[in-house]
Amino acid sequence: MENTVTNAADRLTAAIKEKGAPCAVGLDTALDFLPEEMTRACDSAEGAAAAVAEFNYRVIESVRGLAPAVKVQVAYYEALGWQGMRAFADTLKYARENGLIAIADCKRNDIASTAGAYASAFLGGAAFGAFECDFLTVNGYLGADGIKPFTDECAKRGKGVFVLCKTSNPGSGQLQDLKLDGTCAAPVPSNAADSRRGGGRTLYEAMGGLINEWGAGLVGQSGYSAVGAVVGATHPAQAAVLRKLMPRAIFLVPGYGAQGGTAEGLRPCFNADGTGAVVNSSRAILCAYRSEKYKGMKYYEAARAATEDMVEDLRRLQGIDD
Amino acid sequence: MENTVTNAADRLTAAIKEKGAPCAVGLDTALDFLPEEMTRACDSAEGAAAAVAEFNYRVIESVRGLAPAVKVQVAYYEALGWQGMRAFADTLKYARENGLIAIADCKRNDIASTAGAYASAFLGGAAFGAFECDFLTVNGYLGADGIKPFTDECAKRGKGVFVLCKTSNPGSGQLQDLKLDGTCAAPVPSNAADSRRGGGRTLYEAMGGLINEWGAGLVGQSGYSAVGAVVGATHPAQAAVLRKLMPRAIFLVPGYGAQGGTAEGLRPCFNADGTGAVVNSSRAILCAYRSEKYKGMKYYEAARAATEDMVEDLRRLQGIDD
Repeated sequence: MENTVTNAADRLTAAIKEKGAPCAVGLDTALDFLPEEMTRACDSAEGAAAAVAEFNYRVIESVRGLAPAVKVQVAYYEALGWQGMRAFADTLKYARENGLIAIADCKRNDIASTAGAYASAFLGGAAFGAFECDFLTVNGYLGADGIKPFTDECAKRGKGVFVLCKTSNPGSGQLQDLKLDGTCAAPVPSNAADSRRGGGRTLYEAMGGLINEWGAGLVGQSGYSAVGAVVGATHPAQAAVLRKLMPRAIFLVPGYGAQGGTAEGLRPCFNADGTGAVVNSSRAILCAYRSEKYKGMKYYEAARAATEDMVEDLRRLQGIDD
Repeated sequence: MENTVTNAADRLTAAIKEKGAPCAVGLDTALDFLPEEMTRACDSAEGAAAAVAEFNYRVIESVRGLAPAVKVQVAYYEALGWQGMRAFADTLKYARENGLIAIADCKRNDIASTAGAYASAFLGGAAFGAFECDFLTVNGYLGADGIKPFTDECAKRGKGVFVLCKTSNPGSGQLQDLKLDGTCAAPVPSNAADSRRGGGRTLYEAMGGLINEWGAGLVGQSGYSAVGAVVGATHPAQAAVLRKLMPRAIFLVPGYGAQGGTAEGLRPCFNADGTGAVVNSSRAILCAYRSEKYKGMKYYEAARAATEDMVEDLRRLQGIDD
């Protein structure tokens, strides 16, 4: 029997190529992003969640021809309780039905059996569907046995993960930039010796080495692995180091736009052929309707126009190295 | 106006004293933990979620006189989709209504504004209640600015967090035990110099130092901070180091029982007076009805008996140092 499970990195790479733009529209739909006329329904959790879902549907319809992916940040949905989680599930489903790659930004992490429950919740193995997406963000602080349940599920169901490596926040260096002396106080799994190598490396470089290892068995025909890395747009020097360290990892790059990352700063996140990264923008797209530049447009029209601008920006950047 | 917000560490410490047992009953209610007669209703997400909630309610009623706290692991609820998240919210609510301290084990983590959305979802600031608990577990890999939104909310609403420090899984050492050379490649927040001190320290020790810093402003009358630490029962030697390093942090200790941690191994998690830790047991309590020892009991009766046994075990341990 032929294996019909496709590699998630291949699907994402193909979608980026088809749309001609390595970007994700971030559906971090905070209640205060909604236009005034939609907030009137927000006097209950049900009403607020329904308004958020409707906002997302219109944005999805508006950008589906332009962007290959959406990234949905679960925190804003959890803040609306289980009703919000229904909107989260519906948003992921609607994005996938509209041909978009759905990235669930949940940064989940736990020990083995519990990580397995998370993997089933998000990567398609749940009995009743739950929150099925294409890619899930995860946090690797617990080590290989906290990641394996996710990568096992990725292999089985053609899904992917992005492991936090160097995050976009100003304080990310407090732990991630700590330098290692090249030793480990504990025995580590035999397949994970890489984390101990190289005194003078930073923690984020050690994490990068592990992301390489964790993804080695999930490299698709595109040359990229279903195990990618989260690398913030706000740290171009570190991104350059990580790009060399993880040639087969797709970088999910937050921090472009509202957080201060520039298109120029993104360049180190891409390989020389312009592939290997997907750049996320959330607030600049969802709240575009409030800016002078897109004045008079409906929120979803402004979201489309802002996505077009991002696409143009990124294409120019990719062209430089073509 | 008097400040009526109580410190979460004080509430937990008082509850432990009142019940005479430093333990939490872990409501990690996987579907396959349910007794056969309850699984018949599990042919839909709604039915499964309702069965899980009912199972939890009966266990809560059964242990409320014995245990000061429950720890609810969200992954098993997420695996049942938004219907599961409703059962999660209902379980937290029912535990609190029954006078138990509710610890939501969610290991949440993100950058500032998004961490704020998580904080509101779990620590009582959400418009419609969402998933209000007393304590939330969080992952500190993103550094101080990813933790501050949580500790701000703790200060405001009398809530607490447990930050992952040294986790109970066998592979936790792969990253957490990496040794640092005492330098940092990036400038770090001025109030967070501790992470750079001490070459030869491990990453989990650096995390412990930061947990101290993050919790310094939230120490209650009990002498403990609302910022605690997750320290696995499976690593007694490391726990002893961390106990000295974080005298004011309450340790949330998973790994007792099913994961191989013994009562004797727990001792380093407590301060000399027998305070400072809360030990969690999940499977050994929820699935007690399947063991020879508790044969013939209903699941909630067996859960109570197993909790009594854990309490006795922990009291004996505490007595040693009294």
